[in-house]
Amino acid sequence: MNSIFRRNNSESGDANKPTKPVTLYVIRLSPGCRVTWWYLIQTKIPYTLVDVDVITLDDKEEGTTEKKKLPEGCPPEGVPALVDGDILVFGVHSVLRYLSSRYCSYYAFGKTLPTRMRVESLIEWTENELHRVLGYRCVYPQISQKYRLPSNLASDQLVETGFKELAFLLEYLENKLLATGTSTSSVYLCDKELTVVDFFVATILMQAEWISFDLRLWPKLKSWLGSMKSQNGWDQVHKVHREFVQELKVLNEASL
Amino acid sequence: MNSIFRRNNSESGDANKPTKPVTLYVIRLSPGCRVTWWYLIQTKIPYTLVDVDVITLDDKEEGTTEKKKLPEGCPPEGVPALVDGDILVFGVHSVLRYLSSRYCSYYAFGKTLPTRMRVESLIEWTENELHRVLGYRCVYPQISQKYRLPSNLASDQLVETGFKELAFLLEYLENKLLATGTSTSSVYLCDKELTVVDFFVATILMQAEWISFDLRLWPKLKSWLGSMKSQNGWDQVHKVHREFVQELKVLNEASL
Repeated sequence: MNSIFRRNNSESGDANKPTKPVTLYVIRLSPGCRVTWWYLIQTKIPYTLVDVDVITLDDKEEGTTEKKKLPEGCPPEGVPALVDGDILVFGVHSVLRYLSSRYCSYYAFGKTLPTRMRVESLIEWTENELHRVLGYRCVYPQISQKYRLPSNLASDQLVETGFKELAFLLEYLENKLLATGTSTSSVYLCDKELTVVDFFVATILMQAEWISFDLRLWPKLKSWLGSMKSQNGWDQVHKVHREFVQELKVLNEASL
Repeated sequence: MNSIFRRNNSESGDANKPTKPVTLYVIRLSPGCRVTWWYLIQTKIPYTLVDVDVITLDDKEEGTTEKKKLPEGCPPEGVPALVDGDILVFGVHSVLRYLSSRYCSYYAFGKTLPTRMRVESLIEWTENELHRVLGYRCVYPQISQKYRLPSNLASDQLVETGFKELAFLLEYLENKLLATGTSTSSVYLCDKELTVVDFFVATILMQAEWISFDLRLWPKLKSWLGSMKSQNGWDQVHKVHREFVQELKVLNEASL
């Protein structure tokens, strides 16, 4: 019988754990890296964390910290990357899928096959659409020279049109994915229970804090994000994010 | 035993086929849609194809063809989408993963677990990096108003900087992924045999034909792409692409 029909074990303490800790290569400010790290914490899979890069505030600061190399075989921008014995997996979707199917019976992927396929599909959508628009169009060009276009006019247009696309995607999250419940405390994006999609979308929305973007126009989403912040493991994986937001705040105040 | 350890069946004629044809919703000009369609042809899984949209040459032509709706539950831009009984899957990675694990023993995903994980990881990289840069930065802004920025200057800068990123990615394909072989006829991107990554990367590189971009600076890649065009199923899934390239050529000649 194919494994996608196997019963889901909602307990994260599955017996089938690796004999040696897996190694996860991350950039702690990357939302995809944070969600894979969170998944290792939740499922109690033993792991070692390796930082491969530091996102700096501007290009002048680049090179001030030593960059640890990604494992041989990773492509450019190939984080998160997971090494488990002779197996290398990279990319948030692939790493989550590998861990979920190998070690923890699809923990937080939903209990039925239709739900699990919906979770997998929405992981892909979150990475391709939501992160592409919120990250690469709206937030990163305002923070890092690397993501800007050569002229300020072009960069501004990239960001402005990005926000129009973002509003469309936030409407979808607010009015389609969060529309079913009445009490926000029990509403999740894919299922009646928390799934990895909730945590992934939340880590991406957190990037909006870098530019002080407020979700008040999307009240269900704002409330849901608030409840996500109380999840076990949230504080641990967001420590560097919080420090970065504070650093940006100080810089902004200094430039006033 | 977990399914990711199951023996790979290199024959596409696996007995475990759906009782009713699956339905694949596609945009035929989308490379991700083409690769999932090709996978159904290769694996002989019975299917029905539904066209959901037509990419037009400019915004004025929009609305002239009836758009068939995506199934309920799909997000914006949620193609390819696959319906199989009560199961809905969307996104190229998710659809390929679903079909491969459910119906054809990971056909064209590699024969060992390390290879399969590499194939999955590179599917994700291809969608996130290669398509984002080649499609959304270099090609689509030159073809469709939808992907342009408000001013010509900004659009030009988007494309110009996109080409710098693209050259970096093509170097990676040429000098890392295609570096191992001496005879191009037997070289593939992930494995000694053809995998879905070869077909996916090839469909994306084909988008470059829309802007007459030539791969002559990357000879191994150009030769490999030539060999991909002789694959079974290639002509069928690229019919609308070829017509579109011809249409663009006529338009360009008329504007000279």
